[in-house]
Amino acid sequence: MSAAETAQPNEAAGTPAEESAYPSEHTDYLSEGEISVLSRYWRAANYLAVGQIYLLDNPLLGEPLAPEHIKPRLLGHWGTTPGLTLVYAHLNRVISARGLDMIHVTGPGHGGPATVACCWLDGSYSQVYPDVSRDGAGMARLFKQFSFPGGIPSHVAPEVPGSIHEGGELGYSLAHAYGAAFDNPSLVVAAIVGDGEAETGPLATGWHGNKFLDPVHDGAVLPILHLNGYKIANPAVLARLPREELDALLRGYGHEPVYVTGEDPERVHHALAAAFDHCLDRIAALQRAAREEGSEVRPRWPMIVLRTPKGWTGPREVDGKPVEGTWRAHQVPLSGVRDDPGHLAQLEEWMRGYRPSELFDERGRPWPELLAQVPDGERRLGSNPHANGGRLLRSLPAPDIARHAVPVPSPGTGQHEPTRVLGGLLRELMRDTAERRDFRLFGPDETASNRLQEVYEVSGKGWQEELLGTDEDLSRQGRVLEMLSEHNCQGWLEGYLLTGRHGLFSSYEAFIHIVTSMANQHAKWLKVSRELPWRMPVSSLNYLLTSHVWRQDHNGFSHQDPGFVDHMVNKDPETIRVYLPPDANSLLAVAARTLDSRDRINIVVAGKQPSFDWLDLDEAVHHVERGVSVWDWAGTDTGRTPDVVLAAAGDVPTTEVMAAAKLLREELPGLAVRVVNVVDLMRLLPPDRHPHGLNDRGFDAVFTTDKPVIFAYHGYPWLIHRLTYRRRGHDNFHVRGYKEEGTTTTPFDMLVLNDMDRYRLAMDVIDRVPGLALTAISVRQRLKDKRADHRAYVVREGQDLPEIREWTWS
Amino acid sequence: MSAAETAQPNEAAGTPAEESAYPSEHTDYLSEGEISVLSRYWRAANYLAVGQIYLLDNPLLGEPLAPEHIKPRLLGHWGTTPGLTLVYAHLNRVISARGLDMIHVTGPGHGGPATVACCWLDGSYSQVYPDVSRDGAGMARLFKQFSFPGGIPSHVAPEVPGSIHEGGELGYSLAHAYGAAFDNPSLVVAAIVGDGEAETGPLATGWHGNKFLDPVHDGAVLPILHLNGYKIANPAVLARLPREELDALLRGYGHEPVYVTGEDPERVHHALAAAFDHCLDRIAALQRAAREEGSEVRPRWPMIVLRTPKGWTGPREVDGKPVEGTWRAHQVPLSGVRDDPGHLAQLEEWMRGYRPSELFDERGRPWPELLAQVPDGERRLGSNPHANGGRLLRSLPAPDIARHAVPVPSPGTGQHEPTRVLGGLLRELMRDTAERRDFRLFGPDETASNRLQEVYEVSGKGWQEELLGTDEDLSRQGRVLEMLSEHNCQGWLEGYLLTGRHGLFSSYEAFIHIVTSMANQHAKWLKVSRELPWRMPVSSLNYLLTSHVWRQDHNGFSHQDPGFVDHMVNKDPETIRVYLPPDANSLLAVAARTLDSRDRINIVVAGKQPSFDWLDLDEAVHHVERGVSVWDWAGTDTGRTPDVVLAAAGDVPTTEVMAAAKLLREELPGLAVRVVNVVDLMRLLPPDRHPHGLNDRGFDAVFTTDKPVIFAYHGYPWLIHRLTYRRRGHDNFHVRGYKEEGTTTTPFDMLVLNDMDRYRLAMDVIDRVPGLALTAISVRQRLKDKRADHRAYVVREGQDLPEIREWTWS
Repeated sequence: MSAAETAQPNEAAGTPAEESAYPSEHTDYLSEGEISVLSRYWRAANYLAVGQIYLLDNPLLGEPLAPEHIKPRLLGHWGTTPGLTLVYAHLNRVISARGLDMIHVTGPGHGGPATVACCWLDGSYSQVYPDVSRDGAGMARLFKQFSFPGGIPSHVAPEVPGSIHEGGELGYSLAHAYGAAFDNPSLVVAAIVGDGEAETGPLATGWHGNKFLDPVHDGAVLPILHLNGYKIANPAVLARLPREELDALLRGYGHEPVYVTGEDPERVHHALAAAFDHCLDRIAALQRAAREEGSEVRPRWPMIVLRTPKGWTGPREVDGKPVEGTWRAHQVPLSGVRDDPGHLAQLEEWMRGYRPSELFDERGRPWPELLAQVPDGERRLGSNPHANGGRLLRSLPAPDIARHAVPVPSPGTGQHEPTRVLGGLLRELMRDTAERRDFRLFGPDETASNRLQEVYEVSGKGWQEELLGTDEDLSRQGRVLEMLSEHNCQGWLEGYLLTGRHGLFSSYEAFIHIVTSMANQHAKWLKVSRELPWRMPVSSLNYLLTSHVWRQDHNGFSHQDPGFVDHMVNKDPETIRVYLPPDANSLLAVAARTLDSRDRINIVVAGKQPSFDWLDLDEAVHHVERGVSVWDWAGTDTGRTPDVVLAAAGDVPTTEVMAAAKLLREELPGLAVRVVNVVDLMRLLPPDRHPHGLNDRGFDAVFTTDKPVIFAYHGYPWLIHRLTYRRRGHDNFHVRGYKEEGTTTTPFDMLVLNDMDRYRLAMDVIDRVPGLALTAISVRQRLKDKRADHRAYVVREGQDLPEIREWTWS
Repeated sequence: MSAAETAQPNEAAGTPAEESAYPSEHTDYLSEGEISVLSRYWRAANYLAVGQIYLLDNPLLGEPLAPEHIKPRLLGHWGTTPGLTLVYAHLNRVISARGLDMIHVTGPGHGGPATVACCWLDGSYSQVYPDVSRDGAGMARLFKQFSFPGGIPSHVAPEVPGSIHEGGELGYSLAHAYGAAFDNPSLVVAAIVGDGEAETGPLATGWHGNKFLDPVHDGAVLPILHLNGYKIANPAVLARLPREELDALLRGYGHEPVYVTGEDPERVHHALAAAFDHCLDRIAALQRAAREEGSEVRPRWPMIVLRTPKGWTGPREVDGKPVEGTWRAHQVPLSGVRDDPGHLAQLEEWMRGYRPSELFDERGRPWPELLAQVPDGERRLGSNPHANGGRLLRSLPAPDIARHAVPVPSPGTGQHEPTRVLGGLLRELMRDTAERRDFRLFGPDETASNRLQEVYEVSGKGWQEELLGTDEDLSRQGRVLEMLSEHNCQGWLEGYLLTGRHGLFSSYEAFIHIVTSMANQHAKWLKVSRELPWRMPVSSLNYLLTSHVWRQDHNGFSHQDPGFVDHMVNKDPETIRVYLPPDANSLLAVAARTLDSRDRINIVVAGKQPSFDWLDLDEAVHHVERGVSVWDWAGTDTGRTPDVVLAAAGDVPTTEVMAAAKLLREELPGLAVRVVNVVDLMRLLPPDRHPHGLNDRGFDAVFTTDKPVIFAYHGYPWLIHRLTYRRRGHDNFHVRGYKEEGTTTTPFDMLVLNDMDRYRLAMDVIDRVPGLALTAISVRQRLKDKRADHRAYVVREGQDLPEIREWTWS
């Protein structure tokens, strides 16, 4: 890498004309004073990062470094640090100079020491953690806590003020950045993309977020692709591309790249400052064109490619092997420092090379001069309220759910498509937030397929590419976002929520597994955030899982998977809620509750196909409040002890349980059947395992402790056992559900194949109520025959029996 | 779209010189005879696709179409079909003309009718499904079975001969294609990428597979990006890009794109034929350069961009709205055909427009003329053995595990890093397959971090980008593949296995969640494949999950997640195996068994940190064979009834259980403690739930039916309850495990926070053995104090207690 390569502009062919505005060489772009400030700030930040990795004591190197000053266990990642601190320094400069409202997203993994160092320097850190004060005592704590028991992780995490992004699992920086920028027209989100994370799938499609960013109503995202060349142990794919190939890729992603390359700090400072100024000028110009001149051309947003050595300013060689600029700089460049006097000396030389006395006064406070470009107050990257979104959060206008409720003169007579009814409520919310613009719907090309299309009447689908005459419901400013990337939908929504807004992600149930890992990380983020008093609650992440397993009969096995709930209930119980509304009105009641909640992940599973209405709105609201209800009107146990409990969780299970109850009433009128419905699945857990957990007395009162419970559950049946194994009556639970017997068939046949159909449930009752099996032998045979007849019809005719589809309960 | 746009070459700037070899206009590239064959074949395939979507009877339209000939439920996806049949027709042509060994991967979702039609035409379909014969009777069955109960799904699936790829969940076509091409030097994999799936993250990074494809030892991948413009309800992002932006993107991905655009079939036939010939010539030239001339320049592989109307040749308008060329053509263009005479007539007109009598004789057999370009025998895309990889599978050479075993003179004295020991075995396998080249290791930049680096001694990491002097272990022909994309690692391995080879994917445990959904789909693929007698068993997909939850103390909460097992045990039990080897030798025994298995997904969880050796090789092999063992030598119940069972599954739990057993022996010598170790987790399930399930007698003999069982499990504790809830002694099970109490700390503290440390386990015993709590009150207090002291030390000093780390069992 030669200094001459510094800040070469974009010579690649195909460069649009406006690109030439970026000057080709900048060796004296900044004044000496500016360079001096940047340089000192950068040295200070790097010093603080090295200190976090190595030092237990002696933070200012007031005395010669001795083994007892070194941490017993050396952890952390130096390699990415100097690039991150460099960018932070320059962001400070442009925020101050331009009065920008800016947050940053740090994509590279394990960038913790860099970002923590910088927000300690700007005072944000000490503001939320007063014991880590901006002085020598605080510096000692800052150093010790890093990757230390009871301390902080080695990557950017919820603990880091100013962050909405965790650098643990990689790949989501751009999606988070776009999510933050949506509907924040005056915000600029600087997104640092590591060349490691750039190899991930989510990041690779994350670039396309720019096709959904409205230059009028949304803010800007400024990607900074940091090519330091290496991952843990390998070169990075993008870093080794020939220049023209990389340039083509980034232009293909719709950006105008500006290159800053070098290893001479002063030259890089000049070039990077020029690049930032150029990019921010371009952003301002593009926004002006769209906002003031009405341009409808999709902007080619600028971006920066920063190519600097991995582990820059760290040891060049260790034990005779090159370190700076190689993958060996990834983690801790000098190992065994406590026991290796040579390494100890090299560390001391390295740290003293930053000249700490020029950086901190004798009490450990940063000299004011090096903070000259640090912005004030909430403009600091560590203190911008957008990065602590709960501070900006406004409650959604309460929807008038009564207006959307469907009439239910008697249970099981009418039918509605629950998600279509929900669409009306979402339409209302979309309309009522038209000015505020703080509510969005996300989905992978399925909003209409999931029957929520009523929202299009008040907000189209956001789309910044070409519009054709045949297009419908696309609009430049639409707040429905549809891209065939669950990763982007999830990442955008996370970024949107963490900056203080509201939203809902609707997905086919099976394919939500695509974002299992992201949901995992968001759940972890929320758990940790709740433990931080300075992080204000944000709006919950709401999933609507529809087109679910029981109605993917036509699409077949690959589309049938109800296991997302199983995954999520492993996460922190304070975070996870699972609702299975049995009908349209209960879906409305669940939606109103979940959209108004904070810091949760709400999973709502509801069908889009016409299905029976059981509850009027009042009943639905009460049912959702209770979470579990005995449906007296559906059972035959009024005034007597039940012989058996028939329980359901989910819309299709509810229909089957109701049908089974009807069959039993007709066939065995003497049997006392209790019908139970579970809408809030977490009620099944004991109260010490989940805040919604029903206490044992309540649970036993509903399910009894000694009667058979035939439980029809929407998903994998063993989940009900996992939730109830500590209940007294658990041994009596017999659960039916999806047992991975999927295929291409009809809805009724899906139930038969998985033994959850009405006939099977009724037979289960007969088999399990003591003494009944013998007396009801003929009933059982009748049910069995009917079931077989129906199945044969289905397989012969290719359709559900009309009587099954049109069957009504009352 | 105008016909004049057809087959414009690459005018975009930056085109390399060799590109000019592709001629700019082709209106008479093919002879009239060739055009006629292609055109008739294409019409036949389209006719067969429409028939599958609509017809229950009257397949040859021998009589006027009547409502009773129409399926009662219209399902299927017409939109993508004509593009897929077109490509298939042209692939036939080039395979025949060039004698190519080629398979295809159909990325677009729901392309079932197209591919099924084509492999019925070439006879492959009837060969594996003789009742679906290549005549009128077979055609009737072909039509009826599609999306019909007991029939086949609407997308390409395992049921489709010639496929290694399911078109249900989207995004993996390129990864599968590269996996198939690795180590198949004479194979060409044609990969059709839909413009919908192109938006997914996995596909977006899938393009980078070309940086890992060795032109000498690997075959070629020919991507065909099919831009038909629309997804379900939206335009596709790539389809709406301006031409120069799309061109830059594809060049940035390292390809030379060739464009074929049009809506006039004849012109498109000419242009597409020319494009295929050009691309295959380029592939041959690039391979020659690498193989014969020793070129080390990474090839810019050719690719085709095919832009044709969605639902091409289908109804132009329906009910006054445009359909062909819009998203309305996505599924069934004409609805309600049974009840709508107008739609019925339009369907008949559409189908007759293909002139069926020119396509099929009166007995429904395709006229031989239209099959003139169909290849013979195993060259047919539906019959290529690479797409039924079990037919080509050779068993791996059996590794000599004794050579890698670690000596264990007595249990718990020595320590080894289990994965490093495994690395030796993998090195041997890598060496022994150096000529065969049918074994590979995959991992996201973590092979060395996971301590498997001994393999580098015999095979480097494959890398086709620039090599620098400082690089280590990179090589052009390496069979270790490392890219920071779990999606690519998984997809490559799937493609590699499904074409008859072997492999292993090692990952940090927490981040394997990234491919949860892919693993899901692979499990479904294997389940369905096993039900198809013509699909031969393939080698199992082996996961090594290491850097696991208990040793991610330093990386913190985001790196701690053992839930992948929970997810996978929901899948078909015939497919899923889970092993938790307690030490190095048992990892060797597990590896030998899993690498030699077929049609499974084996999840092996093993640590990389030094940990105690418990079993010598013989004992380890026996332990793995049994799956669950009583470790007599570790317990104190020899010759007497145990008072308590201490069970462990996992390496860290084993150490803690052993330590707890030791504490109890010292503190309460009279107590009869049985020590049980579980290496094969599925043994816990009843035998009717899993083929490895222990029968009740065996289970009760090990765990007793009435004694307390304190079970230390590697992952979420409730999984053990979910597996054992039907066992007689289940109510006595008390399980400890990871309960999402993650943080940045030390290994010992992780155990304390999650209540799985030795002291807690010993206290659990005291609390649960009847009568013991009172007499052992002082022991309990001692344990409690010691635990608290240790924790305080850890938090103060930032390291594990030396005595905890160096503690030995014997």
